[in-house]
Amino acid sequence: MRIGAIEAGGTKFVCGIGNEEGQIEDRVSFPTEQPERTLGQVIDYFRGKGVEAIGVGSFGPINIDRSSPQYGYVTTTPKPGWTDYPFLPVLKQAFDVPMGWDTDVNAAAFGEATWGAAKGLDSCVYYTIGTGVGVGVYAEGRMIHGLVHPEGGHVLTRRHPDDAYEGFCPYHGDCLEGIAAGPALEKRWKVKGSELAEDHPAWRMEAFYIGQAVANTVLTLSPKKIILGGGVMHQMQLFPMIREEVRKNLNGYVSASAILQEIDDYIVPPGLGDNAGLCGSLALGLNALRERA
Amino acid sequence: MRIGAIEAGGTKFVCGIGNEEGQIEDRVSFPTEQPERTLGQVIDYFRGKGVEAIGVGSFGPINIDRSSPQYGYVTTTPKPGWTDYPFLPVLKQAFDVPMGWDTDVNAAAFGEATWGAAKGLDSCVYYTIGTGVGVGVYAEGRMIHGLVHPEGGHVLTRRHPDDAYEGFCPYHGDCLEGIAAGPALEKRWKVKGSELAEDHPAWRMEAFYIGQAVANTVLTLSPKKIILGGGVMHQMQLFPMIREEVRKNLNGYVSASAILQEIDDYIVPPGLGDNAGLCGSLALGLNALRERA
Repeated sequence: MRIGAIEAGGTKFVCGIGNEEGQIEDRVSFPTEQPERTLGQVIDYFRGKGVEAIGVGSFGPINIDRSSPQYGYVTTTPKPGWTDYPFLPVLKQAFDVPMGWDTDVNAAAFGEATWGAAKGLDSCVYYTIGTGVGVGVYAEGRMIHGLVHPEGGHVLTRRHPDDAYEGFCPYHGDCLEGIAAGPALEKRWKVKGSELAEDHPAWRMEAFYIGQAVANTVLTLSPKKIILGGGVMHQMQLFPMIREEVRKNLNGYVSASAILQEIDDYIVPPGLGDNAGLCGSLALGLNALRERA
Repeated sequence: MRIGAIEAGGTKFVCGIGNEEGQIEDRVSFPTEQPERTLGQVIDYFRGKGVEAIGVGSFGPINIDRSSPQYGYVTTTPKPGWTDYPFLPVLKQAFDVPMGWDTDVNAAAFGEATWGAAKGLDSCVYYTIGTGVGVGVYAEGRMIHGLVHPEGGHVLTRRHPDDAYEGFCPYHGDCLEGIAAGPALEKRWKVKGSELAEDHPAWRMEAFYIGQAVANTVLTLSPKKIILGGGVMHQMQLFPMIREEVRKNLNGYVSASAILQEIDDYIVPPGLGDNAGLCGSLALGLNALRERA
């Protein structure tokens, strides 16, 4: 089987071809520019490659309401040229194959549930913490859409008592993204996160925020696995600190061995590593093929 | 059709018989005492009534994992006698009919999606704000269970700057339940909530907390309807204040007309009024009958 996968990020696109085992056989990457140019590169890449389906995990906000005439569109992004752009329709004009379409983070959650850290589970929540914070939700064997789609990167958390930084989110100031995404680290500490020592107090503060959001998510959704990916989470020292914060916040209330005894296996990095997004898009493509069949 | 419904609350049980239209034809209510005595009353009520199925929406925490040997048990409740009590197995010994089993708040969400304020929608979130705070989640046409089940009443919110009350939750102190449930109103203002004037500042503070939790839920789950029930929400003046807080918190980020233009129809009281729980249990019973068929 040859399935096309598109991880459509706000800064770069990754396209690849994979199979039903989740193996990526070929891949290419280019920066995200004007949509006509970028989609042109996507179409050039897949042309003649004989893919049976294509899955797209896209930056957002996007329209994933199948009953809407704007299904498959990017909607209100500040990214120049992409507002109301018919991403999926343009792709469908080029290739007459089944296509899967979802947010990049829902795709990553689905990829992790298909082949990664949540393999075999019917629920997981995927956080990407990088230049922004995004959250994908897979529950009861389905990606959660609803009114628009989850945007859990913008929840409010309590402020750390030693944190005077006001946050950079243009909508909310100090929402989770505004105080915990990569740019917040840099603005608060005046040095890139990747240059902060492993034992810098920055990481305790970071874990304070992420741990609180994760604890609230555990209470709200009760997922079977929490997966934390993205550039900031390459700082592996964050994992034990976040687990500690989650436990402190829940304080024994959620009586599940996954949390009380096996939290090291409950809050984890992506099993697919930095391939979570591309593999997730692959899984979306496979899913579309199966739905058609 | 005659379907049995049990709304199993921590302070009282309501049992009823209804039909496939959601109409309750008969009902009875008694206080929640030791489980043997209370279940005895339940069994006496339904005996000889010829119900084709029974649905139970129960106080929790409960086990709703069908693959578990403890499926149908109440688990770690502080309620005397109920810890690890096999609620559903005891009922099944008495009646050989299909049975639905879920949390009281998931049942209420399901009832609202079947016959109430979220009728025809594939997602909604149901809050009950009374002596405690509970949250039921219905998404993509299913009740959300996961690891245990949602316990969204215990999320942390930011503190109101004028609020010195420390909260009463034995696990978390000032989680949402600890600062916004009925007892918090009474402890903070030294008078029962029902005795506070409509324009008392208590309600603004209450809306501040509930609005924040609702905004975070909108971001995390993107439900198509938010339903606010329970004793505290009988204070109808709270609705416009909560909607205002939600809008303030989201600040235009979630670009959906339901929120931007039609929020009066998005954050609403239960369409089934105080019958949401019993009708939800009825819907669970109907669901179990259909699954068996």
